[in-house]
Amino acid sequence: MSKIEPRLLQGFFDYSPEEMKIRQHVSDVWRETFERYGYGQLDTPVLEYADILFGKYGEEEKLIYHFNDHGHRHVALRYDHTVPLARYVAQNRHQLTLPFKRYAIGKVWRAEKASKGRKREFYQCDIDIVGTNNLLADAEIISAFNHGFSQFPLPKALFLISHRKILESFLKTLSIPEDIFIEVNRAVDKLDKIGIKGVEEELSKRSVPLKKIPEIISFIDSHGSNQEILQNLKKLLNNSPEGAKALLDLEKLFAYLDSYGLQEDRYRLTPSLVRGLDYYTGIVFEAIIPEKSRSAIAGGGRYDNLCNLFTEEKIPAVGASVGYDRLCMLLEEANFRPQKDHKSILISVFSQAQSSDSIKIATLLRTAGINTELFAGDQKIGQQFKYADKNNIPFVAVLGPDEIRNGIITLKNLKTGAQIQLKLTEIVPKINEFLNN
Amino acid sequence: MSKIEPRLLQGFFDYSPEEMKIRQHVSDVWRETFERYGYGQLDTPVLEYADILFGKYGEEEKLIYHFNDHGHRHVALRYDHTVPLARYVAQNRHQLTLPFKRYAIGKVWRAEKASKGRKREFYQCDIDIVGTNNLLADAEIISAFNHGFSQFPLPKALFLISHRKILESFLKTLSIPEDIFIEVNRAVDKLDKIGIKGVEEELSKRSVPLKKIPEIISFIDSHGSNQEILQNLKKLLNNSPEGAKALLDLEKLFAYLDSYGLQEDRYRLTPSLVRGLDYYTGIVFEAIIPEKSRSAIAGGGRYDNLCNLFTEEKIPAVGASVGYDRLCMLLEEANFRPQKDHKSILISVFSQAQSSDSIKIATLLRTAGINTELFAGDQKIGQQFKYADKNNIPFVAVLGPDEIRNGIITLKNLKTGAQIQLKLTEIVPKINEFLNN
Repeated sequence: MSKIEPRLLQGFFDYSPEEMKIRQHVSDVWRETFERYGYGQLDTPVLEYADILFGKYGEEEKLIYHFNDHGHRHVALRYDHTVPLARYVAQNRHQLTLPFKRYAIGKVWRAEKASKGRKREFYQCDIDIVGTNNLLADAEIISAFNHGFSQFPLPKALFLISHRKILESFLKTLSIPEDIFIEVNRAVDKLDKIGIKGVEEELSKRSVPLKKIPEIISFIDSHGSNQEILQNLKKLLNNSPEGAKALLDLEKLFAYLDSYGLQEDRYRLTPSLVRGLDYYTGIVFEAIIPEKSRSAIAGGGRYDNLCNLFTEEKIPAVGASVGYDRLCMLLEEANFRPQKDHKSILISVFSQAQSSDSIKIATLLRTAGINTELFAGDQKIGQQFKYADKNNIPFVAVLGPDEIRNGIITLKNLKTGAQIQLKLTEIVPKINEFLNN
Repeated sequence: MSKIEPRLLQGFFDYSPEEMKIRQHVSDVWRETFERYGYGQLDTPVLEYADILFGKYGEEEKLIYHFNDHGHRHVALRYDHTVPLARYVAQNRHQLTLPFKRYAIGKVWRAEKASKGRKREFYQCDIDIVGTNNLLADAEIISAFNHGFSQFPLPKALFLISHRKILESFLKTLSIPEDIFIEVNRAVDKLDKIGIKGVEEELSKRSVPLKKIPEIISFIDSHGSNQEILQNLKKLLNNSPEGAKALLDLEKLFAYLDSYGLQEDRYRLTPSLVRGLDYYTGIVFEAIIPEKSRSAIAGGGRYDNLCNLFTEEKIPAVGASVGYDRLCMLLEEANFRPQKDHKSILISVFSQAQSSDSIKIATLLRTAGINTELFAGDQKIGQQFKYADKNNIPFVAVLGPDEIRNGIITLKNLKTGAQIQLKLTEIVPKINEFLNN
């Protein structure tokens, strides 16, 4: 019979048990952090009606996976966790007590061009607060992310912060037509990828009046302390009530971040930051680890109009997302290993006749809370040692006929090669001691 | 602007933060159990090439969600975790040290008829051992599931156990043509849903010779102790070497279960059990909670030929899956609440002027490891109490102007109505004490 070639779709990945140790640790840290901050988990379906997702993401929506299901419904795979949240809140408005705070950890799908080497299936890990204009919410989200990142052995995160309305109101003062604001946003959003020269080119391609480009460039190419940038922006926007209001919001946010104990050098007012997605309306931010890369490892902002696409009621919201895969990559590069990684033991099986005794020792250890693997193959004892070695299991217990006759086990430390004999009554306390040293 | 109706696809569900508390607890218990037994997590993509999934599930494969992606590739949504595992093992054969033990927890999709009220998106939670014929593996999986189920406040699980070859070899002794074995399997598989009369009818519809039906019915309608059923089967299959071998396998399995400490009344030899999926080849089992329902809350078995569809090498395997949603439903019916449910506190915000002090108290508690919510809306204090109540938060801290002047907080227990004042230095130890009582 001809074989089906075992293969993966491009942009899709398996994560082996070794890789999953880091990934599971990362999920656990964020889950613990989000619960520490009072967020509860919400799980929404992977498939939604297509009209729930389309029309929210701007030009990126061409990346949505969509198809007709068995009942000829037009359905789509989740593109992020934010739009399903807005759908959930609108649908369950009368059961929810606002503000509604939730976290979500799960996969999303985007049919990115394969040439970019990008993942088409990846994890997002989000928190959002729905139903409040209060900037305490925006500050809390930044603080929660700062708390989460500080749990990893990486250099400190820096938060780049802006407000969607400051660039927008500046463009108004330049009398740039409103219908090309979104074009300017998209060009400026690429600053960290293509540099200031690249943005200049991009702007000229996107029907922005050529003589206005130097002013836009000088606006986004800011330098100095947060206070200096803020003062400069105040001058540039002193004819724009909307711009002035956005700057007041930023000042209030910074005061809250101060109360949260976030030091001023941990965040930077960054007028070029607009975030790509069309749905943002207010404060926007990204986190980067400057010692590692200019690429964001988290990002988010305020999206006060998104729920409004599903309901008449105005329901403001703010939220953000961790760049889960990028974070895992940084931890892998730093050779990070989660602590519990090396706390396990293999019980070997000498021969079929000894299976029963090996089972009993395994049961004894498992009942005592020790992660214990019983060798389930037919290979001889030498192969079993190799198996433990390949799977990073540090200890192997041997129960041969001699051991069983004398009521003992032989325990081998694979790292040191040391070998000791343990009486049945010593097994649990001694192994606990070894594993915790 | 016209609104998009916020709605879910039929058979798809949101799980609210309240519901997720139980679901997350269930995932945690299985994850801990599987790691206790030495299994590592494997994460495979939600989307696979369609030819990886089709041709493995028998008549059920019509339920697979599939479509053409942006690159005109025919792709399909994961139908279970087993076929992707077989694909993974075949694809990574040379990097893996067999036996390969892994667990998987995640969603799968089946386009079930909506009329059945069935979920089209649901969780599966699996363990499998790939690369060994040793029945130790089969026994370990049953033991791990028994261990897992014993962690929940439910009546004990009963394991129904059989072997695919015993019914098959019995059918051979009846000279029933081999090409209708699978038809008989499918009819017999419905016993717990349609009863013995229903199976009789089903068999007559499925081109089984009518005069053979009473013998099949008497074969599957077994009574007595495991030993009595086994002795009876030995008589019925004494002319079938294949049947006799299957019975020997069962006897060996039972001896291992005995070593695992599983008492004889916790498992029952059940000749009618065949399991619906076509890929099973040997030992099969299901777990039920007889006090609750005849429906399975776990099921699995040996599938020695599945990997063989992807590679020339014969790679035997055995595995099983928890009925995650059914288990969650049983826990909800039993009004089960995970222990950590009530360990949180709301820091109210008296007015904008007091925000900074509330932030600082929240940060103090969070840093001390206490799950703390800071009220992020604009509502007045009375509404904040209602919010805590609706969200099952047992304690609310108030920091009004008086409290701030005197360097204290007022802590209210929403259940008892009791209210006490705490000095700043007392806050962490006292609140820890309250939450842990």
